[in-house]
Amino acid sequence: MTYCLGLLMREGLVFVSDSRSNAGVDNITLVRKIRTFVVPGERVIVMLSAGNLATTQAITGLLTAAAGNGFVGQDIHLCLNMFDAAQLVGDKLRAQIARDAPHVQPYGDPNATFIVGGQIRGEGPRMFEIYSAGNFVEVTQRRPFAQVGETKYGKPILDRAFRYDTSLGEASKLALLSMDATVRSNLSVAAPVDLLPYPIDTFSAAGLRTFETSDPYWHALCDGYDAGLRELVHRLPGPTEAS
Amino acid sequence: MTYCLGLLMREGLVFVSDSRSNAGVDNITLVRKIRTFVVPGERVIVMLSAGNLATTQAITGLLTAAAGNGFVGQDIHLCLNMFDAAQLVGDKLRAQIARDAPHVQPYGDPNATFIVGGQIRGEGPRMFEIYSAGNFVEVTQRRPFAQVGETKYGKPILDRAFRYDTSLGEASKLALLSMDATVRSNLSVAAPVDLLPYPIDTFSAAGLRTFETSDPYWHALCDGYDAGLRELVHRLPGPTEAS
Repeated sequence: MTYCLGLLMREGLVFVSDSRSNAGVDNITLVRKIRTFVVPGERVIVMLSAGNLATTQAITGLLTAAAGNGFVGQDIHLCLNMFDAAQLVGDKLRAQIARDAPHVQPYGDPNATFIVGGQIRGEGPRMFEIYSAGNFVEVTQRRPFAQVGETKYGKPILDRAFRYDTSLGEASKLALLSMDATVRSNLSVAAPVDLLPYPIDTFSAAGLRTFETSDPYWHALCDGYDAGLRELVHRLPGPTEAS
Repeated sequence: MTYCLGLLMREGLVFVSDSRSNAGVDNITLVRKIRTFVVPGERVIVMLSAGNLATTQAITGLLTAAAGNGFVGQDIHLCLNMFDAAQLVGDKLRAQIARDAPHVQPYGDPNATFIVGGQIRGEGPRMFEIYSAGNFVEVTQRRPFAQVGETKYGKPILDRAFRYDTSLGEASKLALLSMDATVRSNLSVAAPVDLLPYPIDTFSAAGLRTFETSDPYWHALCDGYDAGLRELVHRLPGPTEAS
């Protein structure tokens, strides 16, 4: 399993992904699930992936190999806007699954999903969720986040505290806490965790940071949240007092 | 769908359940999913149910009709201990599904699950999760809660803040907040919410309370939690400050 999350804000975008890949409980490994395509000062395209690892690696591999080759429909640097980028990823995904599905299905599920977000000069930051079918939906202000993989455990904190107007710094903390909730509840989601806050109009992926399990900040954040949450619940009125 | 939760503590038990029952999005209704069998001063047995409503109503109906009839294997008041009560519910569930499944399966899923908890004089409070197959597992100190129905959204707050040593009052708040997280994220889980805190050795279900959507305490708790959570995240260090 996997958990990847993308947040859309007035101030920019935040991406977070775990590293667990597994095929059964005794065949587990670690992979990076965030991939960036950057032309500094010009464009940043970020992909987060979930699902069949052979499928997702094929897509990122093909896009990486073709980046800069100058062919429209292959070269992600030629995408005119983020919709164009989402369509390129969706088309590659559709083609890959059409190619592999008949061979893979006897053994497992060939499907995969992506979050594709970023900014290309000329428009604001945008984000899309790409389905296995290759079609996609855009993330909007009314529900300003996208999740793929094991999505449920990490959703309540976003529903409670994340808004389009949340600052980039607060959103980064919420993204990590949403990831922490998932890592704790599901064995198949695990650190290292990759976090990329993208401030609007910076056209750079320089903010990418990786948190190992032992990272002191990760511990400070999660332990502080746990302690604060218990203290918060303690302060709230009980049902008997109020009745 | 449904969300029911049972908590086991040194100080007693807490039960919480929602009221939504649906067969598709245009056939929705409200039902009480908590059922108590009480002999004051002697025994309290609480059942929370999820799954096919015809199945769960059949079980609680049969047990209600048979309560006090004096036949072992039918009369829940004759159960010697909570293990015995769990076995009675499991056996009834197994028989009901065997009876109905061939007829129901062409239209939908006949399965159901229960949380059965309480206290019978002579032993401490105990709790069991009953599977559709009629077998069951006991809730223990190491993982002192049971969930049935839509279980994921409400789990992170329990993993973070609930322990066997949590007080009954704190546990009641956590149970309601776990329910609130689920109600918000899943349309098929809805108020009114039934809450029953059971203090050890009281052998009474007098604490049962129902919170309608408009209940002022329910609003105060959930709004206070939301505001407190945002404020807590704000206080925590950001990834940049720590690096």
